[in-house]
Amino acid sequence: MAKAELQMNADQLNVFMREVFQQVADDFNVEEVKPNEVTMRLRVTEKHLRPGGTVSGPSMFGLADVAAYVATLAMIGPKALAVTTNCSLDFMRKPQADADLIATARLLKLGRQLSVSHVLVYSEGMADPVAQATMTYAIPPAKMG
Amino acid sequence: MAKAELQMNADQLNVFMREVFQQVADDFNVEEVKPNEVTMRLRVTEKHLRPGGTVSGPSMFGLADVAAYVATLAMIGPKALAVTTNCSLDFMRKPQADADLIATARLLKLGRQLSVSHVLVYSEGMADPVAQATMTYAIPPAKMG
Amino acid sequence: MAKAELQMNADQLNVFMREVFQQVADDFNVEEVKPNEVTMRLRVTEKHLRPGGTVSGPSMFGLADVAAYVATLAMIGPKALAVTTNCSLDFMRKPQADADLIATARLLKLGRQLSVSHVLVYSEGMADPVAQATMTYAIPPAKMG
Amino acid sequence: MAKAELQMNADQLNVFMREVFQQVADDFNVEEVKPNEVTMRLRVTEKHLRPGGTVSGPSMFGLADVAAYVATLAMIGPKALAVTTNCSLDFMRKPQADADLIATARLLKLGRQLSVSHVLVYSEGMADPVAQATMTYAIPPAKMG
Repeated sequence: MAKAELQMNADQLNVFMREVFQQVADDFNVEEVKPNEVTMRLRVTEKHLRPGGTVSGPSMFGLADVAAYVATLAMIGPKALAVTTNCSLDFMRKPQADADLIATARLLKLGRQLSVSHVLVYSEGMADPVAQATMTYAIPPAKMG
Repeated sequence: MAKAELQMNADQLNVFMREVFQQVADDFNVEEVKPNEVTMRLRVTEKHLRPGGTVSGPSMFGLADVAAYVATLAMIGPKALAVTTNCSLDFMRKPQADADLIATARLLKLGRQLSVSHVLVYSEGMADPVAQATMTYAIPPAKMG
Repeated sequence: MAKAELQMNADQLNVFMREVFQQVADDFNVEEVKPNEVTMRLRVTEKHLRPGGTVSGPSMFGLADVAAYVATLAMIGPKALAVTTNCSLDFMRKPQADADLIATARLLKLGRQLSVSHVLVYSEGMADPVAQATMTYAIPPAKMG
Repeated sequence: MAKAELQMNADQLNVFMREVFQQVADDFNVEEVKPNEVTMRLRVTEKHLRPGGTVSGPSMFGLADVAAYVATLAMIGPKALAVTTNCSLDFMRKPQADADLIATARLLKLGRQLSVSHVLVYSEGMADPVAQATMTYAIPPAKMG
């Protein structure tokens, strides 16, 4: 994946996220974008928590999903229609309730039809990851014309 | 898994869910409980939707997760501390925005330390499943004494 | 998936397997084929075993993989080039060393580009499954012309 | 996982593999061992191939499985009984038929009961990975005595 070139930078990705995912865009921030690698933040608030003082599973899934999506968009440009087809998640440690979650998504394959990523999710300030995810996105065919 | 016997019925499970997951218990309802099989409903509202008129990925994950948890609890009794360790999800069809999601979780293994389930998620009224999930739960060791 | 119609029966599938997978075709047999469901046998021999008297992980993976492939071919006709893109496996019980493995693959989605299946693997004679798998196959585009 | 210390080096792991997995030990070699990271080689021969000039899926699964096992053993010492409980695999590129496979397994969690790894599989000489895997191993309880 040596010839990879960024199509969108962090600012452009944040603007695009705000346009297409109004409902959740405030929760997320694209922190850093490199070819085939993106770092995303989930601003953890009350609604992301579970009793026992931890961040909920759906919140961790949601962050991993968005991070893999943004890592894909960064390389192919804005395509709102890319959809997740497969995800595998390992929950390894309990995240802290009073810390944001940080995800690093690494794009391992970018084909015409599919992108495949590996995502590590961290509780900000902890050294070891709280979860890992593998994500596959289906990329919509380019419009002809 | 022939000797399996229910430890909790649908009413008891709904009461327990309300105690331990106040924040989301209104979203879910245990519809039916049989040995090693549970049917759960997600009442889809505005907060579960995504632009384009579909239910969000985290909502589908959350339902599959809760369904596998409840299928486990039904057989081992109320243990709030069981935690998801692994999940694999295939998103196969687009759910309808104006229909609840219905999940059927089938318990395939119930060991001392782990339970393993297969979950099918349906958009109510559609014949084919919108997602499948496999879920592993770690069961906390019984307290001694 | 109501309109599904079989394109190949068990005999045709066994002949096709023998043509395209000479090296391993003797190991496998298509036992039964129904619309969207296939039952496959792995004839367990010395080479499939592991010390401790059990069937190896790669043998279980191989059976699940072939079962999902055959379930797909049964519906789309002979296409040797379909390739596995994703697989998730839960190993739940130890298979017996002196029994064949039987897999039942159920096709949950058959799109133009992808098929998605759920597979249960049994040690012949045991009531509970030894493994479950979810398999995604990429279907090669139809040749035009 | 800062306090991690190696319990076995590459030579010790190769000797142990030969003792417990006689049938397949010649196929594999532990190339390099570091705390929480192992590099393994699969010596690709005729039996690992598929028509079309590529390495079979079960061979790739087998290598990822062994690499995660060895990464775990390197940290906990020789325990032949550790068993795979879950595996997720993405097949991303076609391996070359005339090249060995090289896997790098990175241990992300080492608990008392479970180890969780991420594995990348390469066709020797290709820059991009042919497959990624996540593997969970159940660690047998220490004998009391």
